[in-house]
Order: sequence, then C-alpha cells, then structure tokens
Amino acid sequence: MRALATHKAARGLLDDAAVLDWPLGLQLVATHDMLVEGVHYTADCPATDVAWKLLAVNLSDLAAMGAKPVGVLLGAAIGSSRPVDWPDAFATGLGRALEAFAVPMLGGDTVRGGVQTVLALTALGSVPAGSALSRGGASAGDDLWVSGTIGDAGLGLAVANGAGLPADAGRKALRRYRGPTPRLALGQALRGLATAAMDVSDGLALDAARLAHASGAAAEIRLADVPLSDFAPGSEADRLAHVSAGDDYELLFAAPAERRDAILAAASQAKTQVTRIGQLSPASPGAAIAQSVRLIGFSGERLQPARLGYEHE
Amino acid sequence: MRALATHKAARGLLDDAAVLDWPLGLQLVATHDMLVEGVHYTADCPATDVAWKLLAVNLSDLAAMGAKPVGVLLGAAIGSSRPVDWPDAFATGLGRALEAFAVPMLGGDTVRGGVQTVLALTALGSVPAGSALSRGGASAGDDLWVSGTIGDAGLGLAVANGAGLPADAGRKALRRYRGPTPRLALGQALRGLATAAMDVSDGLALDAARLAHASGAAAEIRLADVPLSDFAPGSEADRLAHVSAGDDYELLFAAPAERRDAILAAASQAKTQVTRIGQLSPASPGAAIAQSVRLIGFSGERLQPARLGYEHE
Repeated sequence: MRALATHKAARGLLDDAAVLDWPLGLQLVATHDMLVEGVHYTADCPATDVAWKLLAVNLSDLAAMGAKPVGVLLGAAIGSSRPVDWPDAFATGLGRALEAFAVPMLGGDTVRGGVQTVLALTALGSVPAGSALSRGGASAGDDLWVSGTIGDAGLGLAVANGAGLPADAGRKALRRYRGPTPRLALGQALRGLATAAMDVSDGLALDAARLAHASGAAAEIRLADVPLSDFAPGSEADRLAHVSAGDDYELLFAAPAERRDAILAAASQAKTQVTRIGQLSPASPGAAIAQSVRLIGFSGERLQPARLGYEHE
Repeated sequence: MRALATHKAARGLLDDAAVLDWPLGLQLVATHDMLVEGVHYTADCPATDVAWKLLAVNLSDLAAMGAKPVGVLLGAAIGSSRPVDWPDAFATGLGRALEAFAVPMLGGDTVRGGVQTVLALTALGSVPAGSALSRGGASAGDDLWVSGTIGDAGLGLAVANGAGLPADAGRKALRRYRGPTPRLALGQALRGLATAAMDVSDGLALDAARLAHASGAAAEIRLADVPLSDFAPGSEADRLAHVSAGDDYELLFAAPAERRDAILAAASQAKTQVTRIGQLSPASPGAAIAQSVRLIGFSGERLQPARLGYEHE
C-alpha cells in the first residue's frame, strides 16, 4: 500500500494519519462502502477487478452528491483463502484504478485474518458549500433521468453465476458487472441543475422509489424508455428484470422540464449519455418507499415486479 | 447504525454520503484502522468492548497528530460466527463510546458475510493549518516522554489468553487491554510544544525506534523510568516485557528540555499523566529502525529484548 500513497497528504504513511489542506468554501463529502468476498464479488473474480469495483462503488457515491474526489483510505483484511500473490495483484489493480480517476491514496490499514477477504474504502470528496446534491430535493412534475444503460450488471452477475448468454454479450455484461464506471463528471455537472440525485446500486426501481420518497413524491418509470445496452434483451419482462437488478452504478436524477436542454448540454460536456425515463408525480398520502414507484409497461398499464431491488440493512 | 447518525452532516444516512462544513484555517486529518475477530480481539470479547476499542485505536491516531476528532465512518462486516444479538450490542457500545468522546457518526456500511467479523473505522479530525504533530520533527538532545502507564495492555492480553494474575490485577489489566483511552486532550495540548509524537500501539521500544528513526536520531529509554501501573510487576525483566508489548495507546513524544515545565502544565490541563523516560541522541550512521532504540537497564547497562514489539505490514 505504501507504494500507492504518493500524495504529500499521505506523508509516506510514516505518520499516524494523513493531513490535507482544505480550501476555503468547500464542504467535505465522505462515504464508506465495503466489499466482502463471496457476498459482493465471487471468490474467482480477478483481484484487479475487485480493486476497481471497490474504488468505483465509493466514487459513485461521491458522484451522486456532485462531489469531486480528494482522496481515499483503504482497509484490507486479506483472508486465508487468497493465493499468496493476491495482495500484490490487488494493489496493482487499485493503483491503476486510482490513476484512472486521478484520486490519491491517503492511508489505511492492511491486515491478515479471517477466511474471507473484507475490503473497506473511505472516499473523501469536496463540493462548493451548499451545492451538494441530495435525494430529497425533487418535486412532483420533475423529469426523471438516468445515465448510461440499466441492467447490464444484473446480466453480468447472472453470467458470473453460470448463466448462458451469447459469448460476446456475456463478456460485455460481465465487464459491466465487474468494472462499473462512477459518473463523476456528470455528478459535478449536475450541481445547480438536478433537484435530486443518487446512484443506482440496488435496482433502478427500488432506488427511484427511495429518491421519490425522500422528495415526498412518487416516481413513474416508462419501461420502454429505460436505456439498455445493445446486447441486453429488451422485452417488457426483460425490462422488468433490468430495473430490479443491482450494481448499475449509474446516476438517477430529477430536474424540472425547463432544464432539459441544460441537462443534455451538461451531460454532453461530461461525455455521458443521459435518458429521460419518466417523471415524479404527487405521492399517495402516507405511501411507504415500496409504494413510491410506478412501473409503466409498453401499453401504458402499470406493472408490478416480483421485487424492486436489493433490500439490505 | 442509523440511530447513531444523529449529526446533521450524516443527513440521517438518507443520502449517498455525509456532507460536512469545513472551517477556514483547519487542515483535515484522516486515519483508518481495522479490527479483525480472532486477530485483534478474541471471539469472546464483549461486543461493547470491541466497539470501544475500534473507536479508541482510531482516535488515538488522531491524538498522535494533535488533531481534534470531527467524525467517524464505520464499516462492519458481521461474520456468521456472531450471535444474533451481537450487532445490537456492538451498536450500543459504539454509541456509548462515541458519546464519551463527543464524536459524531457520519456514515458507513454494515454488511453480513464471512465467518469472522471485520470492523473498519475511519476517523476524521482537524488541526490548525501547519500545526499537526509528526514523528519526524525531533532532534538529538530532546527529552522523550510518554503518557499514562506502559505494559498494562500486554498483561491484559496475557490474561485474555488465560495467564494467571491476582484477580484484581487481572481485571484491571484486561480492562486496559480492552478499553484503551485515546489521549486526545494531551495530543491537542502538545501542538507547538512537542517536536515529534506518535501513539504507542506496537510496543514502546519499537515505536520509540520508529519515532527516533523518522527524526534522524536514536532513542534512549531508561527502563527504571518507564511508568507502570501499581498492579504491574516492575523488575528489569518485567520492564523489558512491558516495553515490547503492544496495545498501550499512550502518546510517545519528544520535546527540548527547556519545555519541561510547559509540558507538565499542558499535561496537567489535559488531566493526563506524563513521564520523562529518556532522550534522543545522535543516530549511528545508516542505522535501521531496529537499531534506533537503546534500552538502559537499572545499572546503566544496555539491554536487548528478544523483540522490540509487533512488526506488521
């Protein structure tokens, strides 16, 4: 890990903590997500992919807040099931991922113990004071948008679990599952434009329900408008599966209709595809989170999936 | 965890990350340490003690930098070996510990998976710009000081592993092993006074060697002057064991002799005992870390312990 900690704030990992200058007028944004071997990734997932995903899922949270990354701290408890060369491969992968996003490693802790490997990452970011995006700022009438394509990672998880897909599609889906792209540039570009935002990690339907509920509204999603990769099957039933699968790490956001052009311009500048998939409507009084999303089928009827996404603690 | 995240920066854990105001003129200090069940604590250690220790060891790193805590993020991967009421007991203990140090919980991640429980904590703190303590600022001639008492936790570990000690001593030692006290007030009081500081976590002898080496000097520790608890045995051989045992979480620091009165006054204000245990002397050219500490016995001769402390990655 020492080799990765080249930023001066890390002090060569020679002190007990990192020390960072903090510019005037910025707020600190902080998030922490873990990946557990056998739970969040399969034991046979390459170490470099695990490293990428660990960084990406945390940066995705910063992106959802409109924050710019300033550094990360790593906690790695390397389990006894790992081959001896795993830590080096992981460090190489993490180094590459940090470089790809130009994020410095500030410090952390590497220990051995346990059977399964447990990885923890804290991502620190900054936003101009008062400009952080949140889930709760949208209103009924706002458009609902999503970045990229939805459902690829769910297909990739199925492939990782042995499902059959045409070889090329299977490879692409697995890549999306193991190598998500945090939408950092888009998140920052949406500050001042989006009224609410979050990253889609537990299923578009469930996450839309959460955003809508936090905003005191209900989300309507037109399944036909949900953006899919060219390799993803697109029937109504397929789309119901895509919107309730997890690990997309796309941004879901809301904005008033009069900002459509501004949002398309911002997304274009961030080199990220965005698609309008529905809108927010008034909430039913006392609606729970699960009742805060309506999925609209191809002929305009309301559909109910078996589940909206991954619920966890 | 949600019940613990009452600070407004945590946003009720409803958003993807915490957002903190950052006052002008302060630097951000960040540290991350993990505890693994069966490695850093025994499986039968009460959940409330584990929670205390997790917070304390991280706050101890902030203390070593002279930083004031501003908040923490928790990563908890709860292993399958834990009883069902363990997470609640852990959360209760963590809540109590956070309250004891007046530190807000900003966010984090709780997952289930693996056999052993792995706990990760990121502690964020602040220091006035340019005033953080480091290991590398001391000079030959500086006094070497330590807070509290040394070796209690090593005795406590022996008790946890089944060693026999008189009942009262055993209980006190176990308490010190499981419930270390981060020296936060002292660390902040030492800004501008200490030329170097660190926390003693891997053994006083080894950590003194690290501080001396980082400062380009050698540490001389007079064993007779090392402060012990009244329940700790104090022969020369006992003291050699105490200075090479870990988990003290006391502060080790250096300062010029002319600051002795100022340091005693600062320590008194911080309600923390400090003791002069030796001094820094010129380094031998090209000395490695292990050669950067000299332990002086009762009759002035130099002693060599079997090991200086816990070496890890």
